Amino acid sequence: MGYPPVTQAEGNTMQKATPRNAFYAQSGGVTAVINASACGLIETARKFPRKIGKIYAGRHGIIGALTEDLIDVSQESPAAIRALRYTPGGAFGSARYKLKGLDVNRAHYERLIEVFRAHDIGYFFYNGGNDSMDTANKVSQIGAQLGYPITCIGIPKTVDNDLPLTDCCPGFGSVAKYVAVSTREAALDVASMARTSTKVFVLEVMGRHAGWIAAAAGLACEKTGDAPHIILFPEIVFDQAKFLAKVRDSVERYGYCVVVVSEGVHNADGKFLAEAGGTDAFGHAQLGGVGPLVAKIVKDSLGYKFHWAVADYLQRSARHIASKVDVDQAYAVGKAAVQFAIAGKDAVMPTIVRKSDRPYRWSIGEAPLSAVANAEKKVPRHFITADGFGITAAARRYLSPLIAGEDYPPYRNGLPTYVQLKSAGVRKRLKSAFVL
Amino acid sequence: MGYPPVTQAEGNTMQKATPRNAFYAQSGGVTAVINASACGLIETARKFPRKIGKIYAGRHGIIGALTEDLIDVSQESPAAIRALRYTPGGAFGSARYKLKGLDVNRAHYERLIEVFRAHDIGYFFYNGGNDSMDTANKVSQIGAQLGYPITCIGIPKTVDNDLPLTDCCPGFGSVAKYVAVSTREAALDVASMARTSTKVFVLEVMGRHAGWIAAAAGLACEKTGDAPHIILFPEIVFDQAKFLAKVRDSVERYGYCVVVVSEGVHNADGKFLAEAGGTDAFGHAQLGGVGPLVAKIVKDSLGYKFHWAVADYLQRSARHIASKVDVDQAYAVGKAAVQFAIAGKDAVMPTIVRKSDRPYRWSIGEAPLSAVANAEKKVPRHFITADGFGITAAARRYLSPLIAGEDYPPYRNGLPTYVQLKSAGVRKRLKSAFVL
Repeated sequence: MGYPPVTQAEGNTMQKATPRNAFYAQSGGVTAVINASACGLIETARKFPRKIGKIYAGRHGIIGALTEDLIDVSQESPAAIRALRYTPGGAFGSARYKLKGLDVNRAHYERLIEVFRAHDIGYFFYNGGNDSMDTANKVSQIGAQLGYPITCIGIPKTVDNDLPLTDCCPGFGSVAKYVAVSTREAALDVASMARTSTKVFVLEVMGRHAGWIAAAAGLACEKTGDAPHIILFPEIVFDQAKFLAKVRDSVERYGYCVVVVSEGVHNADGKFLAEAGGTDAFGHAQLGGVGPLVAKIVKDSLGYKFHWAVADYLQRSARHIASKVDVDQAYAVGKAAVQFAIAGKDAVMPTIVRKSDRPYRWSIGEAPLSAVANAEKKVPRHFITADGFGITAAARRYLSPLIAGEDYPPYRNGLPTYVQLKSAGVRKRLKSAFVL
Repeated sequence: MGYPPVTQAEGNTMQKATPRNAFYAQSGGVTAVINASACGLIETARKFPRKIGKIYAGRHGIIGALTEDLIDVSQESPAAIRALRYTPGGAFGSARYKLKGLDVNRAHYERLIEVFRAHDIGYFFYNGGNDSMDTANKVSQIGAQLGYPITCIGIPKTVDNDLPLTDCCPGFGSVAKYVAVSTREAALDVASMARTSTKVFVLEVMGRHAGWIAAAAGLACEKTGDAPHIILFPEIVFDQAKFLAKVRDSVERYGYCVVVVSEGVHNADGKFLAEAGGTDAFGHAQLGGVGPLVAKIVKDSLGYKFHWAVADYLQRSARHIASKVDVDQAYAVGKAAVQFAIAGKDAVMPTIVRKSDRPYRWSIGEAPLSAVANAEKKVPRHFITADGFGITAAARRYLSPLIAGEDYPPYRNGLPTYVQLKSAGVRKRLKSAFVL
C-alpha cells in the first residue's frame, strides 16, 4: 500500500518556519501515571508557542496517526490538562500496535510521515516501552530518508520497569507501591485469621519477563517474619519441592504464609507455570491465573486453607495510591521531552538518573533511542536472596525510594475526580484512508 | 466436657465491687476498620477506671477466652492504641469459631464463664457479625443462669453489610470505597486500551449472600456509559443469555464492558455459579473464582479479549483507601459499647442510625442482640435496576454517604506504618486446659 503525493496545501504548511505542530501518542499498557507525562509534556509545550504550535494526540495511540484520527489538545483547558497529572489510564487512548521493521512495514512509516506532513507536525513524542522507542527511532530515520524534518523523542513508560539505560521507568513506582501496600495489608488480615482460617495467601502480580513488580512486594517485609514470606520471580526457575518446603516452614514458624507470585514465573523447561499447569481452559498465558495455580499446588501437597487474589489491572491503574516520586518522574520525563525537542535533540529519550539512594536524589538524563529499543532489564541475581524467594538489601536500597511519598488525587463524594477530556477530533486533511 | 469448680481465689475476685475487668474479642473475617472499633472501645474504657479495671483481649477471638489465652491490653501504650484506628486486620487475632446453641454447646459457654470468673471479667465485648451477636446474647443468658454477673455488648462488624437493625455495618463503607475506586480506575485503563486490547474486564468482589459490595461498585458510574456496565448480584438469578446480550451491547456502544461480579452470584437452581461451572478443582465455594468463570463465558460466546481480577482479601484490608465515615462509625460503635456497659445496659448492640441522606447525618442507636442474631439483610429489589444489572437512585442515596471522606494512615518510606501490638499474655489462673 503506497501513499498519495503531497498536496499543494500540505506543501505550503511545510514551508512555514516555526512554530510547527506536535504529535503525542500513548503506547502499550497504560499506567497510573502515563497521563502525568502527558501533563508535563503539554504544560511545557504550551510555554513555547513560538516553537510548538498545536499539540495533537493520537486517538488510541499510533493508530490515531495512521488513521489520521487526531485529538486537538489545544481545546483542552489548563485545568483539564492539570488534572491529567492525577488521572490514571491513557487519557487519549493507547494501543498495542507494534510497527515492525522498516523493511517489512515501510508503508506504515510512510503513512505516518504523510499524516505528519498533512498536519505540519514537526515533533513526534512517543510515550511507551521498548517497542515504542524502536518505532520512534525508525520514524526519525524515515523522516530523514524522505526529506521530512521530524523531531522524534521517546518518553519512557512501563509498569514492568524493564527499560535499559534509565534507573527506573515511570509507571513502575506506583504499581510497586500498590503491591507493597496491598501485600502488607492483606498479610495483616491473614495473620489475624490464620489460627482457624486461611493459612496461605497468594497474590498474583504482573511482570511477564521481569520480576520487578513482585520484588517490590518485598518492601512490605521489614523484619523477620513479616510478609511476604515467599516471592516467586520470573528470573528464578520454579522449584516446587523447595517452594513447598518454604511454605510449610513459614506456616510452622509464623502461623501463616504470604506468597507473591509474578505472572511470568516458569518451570525449568522455560514454560510459564500457568501454561504448564493444565488445570483449566481460561487462556492463562494471556490472563494470569498462576496465582490460583500456586494456591492449588499448596492445597494439594500441604492441605492448608488458602485464598488467592489476582490484582490484574487494579495494580497498574491504582492512581489513588500512586508513588509521589513516580508521579514527579513521570511529569519530569514529559517535560524533558519537550525541552529536548526545543533544544534540537532527536531520537533520544529522557531517562531517570539516580544520584544517590539515601537521601534519594535523581535528575533527568538522556539516552539514544537506538540503545533503548529491544533491550530488557531483568532483576539482577544479587537483588534476589540466595534461596530465590526474597529480596536483598541491595534490592531494597534500589526499590525503596521509588515508592516514596503519596500524591493523592482530589475526591468528590468519596471518589477520585479523574478528568475526562473533550478529545475533540481534528478535521482530516487527507483523502486517503488507511486500513490497519 | 465439664468445667472445674471455682477456686477460692476466683471466688474472692468476684466479691470485689468495682472496677471489674473487661474482655474484648474480634470475630469472623476482619476488616479495614475493626481495629478502629477496638480503639474506640479501649480509649473509652480507659476513661472509666473506677468501673473498668483491666482490659483483656482474646488472642484469636473467642478461642483466646476458651483457652484462657488472654492479651493484657493495659500493657499497650496510648500511642499504640491510637494507631489501631488506622491499622487494618484484627490486631488481637480473630477466629471463625462459632459457638452453637446452649443445648449442644453448653460446655463452651460454661467454660467462658469459668475463664471470666477466674479473671474477674464483668464486661464482655464481642466485635463481629450475626453469629457473634448470637454468642454474646447467649453468654448474657448463661451468665444469669449461673449467677455470674456479666455485661454483654455486641459491636457490629462485617464487610458484607448484612446485619439487620443498623443502617450500615462498620467495615462495609471501606470495602465499598475500595471497590468503587478500583472499578473506576480499572475502567479508565480498559477504556484506554479497548481499541486493540481487552474489551471486557471482570472484577470479582466479596459478598456470598448479599450483594452490597457489588452494589457499591455502581457508585463509580455517574453518567451513561460509565463503568461498571454490569453488576451481577447474588440477589438476582444469573441469566446467561441476558448477560451476554448486555455485554455485547456495552462493547458496541462504549467500546468496552466492565463487569463487577459478586462471589455469591448463582443460577436458577440456587447453586453458586462458581460451583456449577465445573471448570476446576480449586474449591471455588470457599475461594471465589466466579470472576474467571464469567470471563470465560464471555470469551466462549462472544470472543472478546478479556481480563479478570479477584480482589479477595485486598478489598477488605485496604485501609489505605478507607472511608472516613466508616472509620468514624467503627470508632463510634466501639466507644458506644463501653458507654452502654457503663450505663448498665446488657445484651445490646450499638447501631448506626441514619438521620438524613444529604447532608448525611447519623447517630448511634441501640438494638437488642436477640433481634440482630441470625437475621440477614440483603440488597432490596428496589435498589437494583429493572434489568438486574445496575443500581438505582435509591441505592445511590443509601450507598454514597458510606464511602465519603478519606482517612489516610501515616506513611514511612512509602508504606503505611501499621501498628503491631506487644500482645503480652496474661498469666493463666486456671489449671484446666480446654480442648477446642
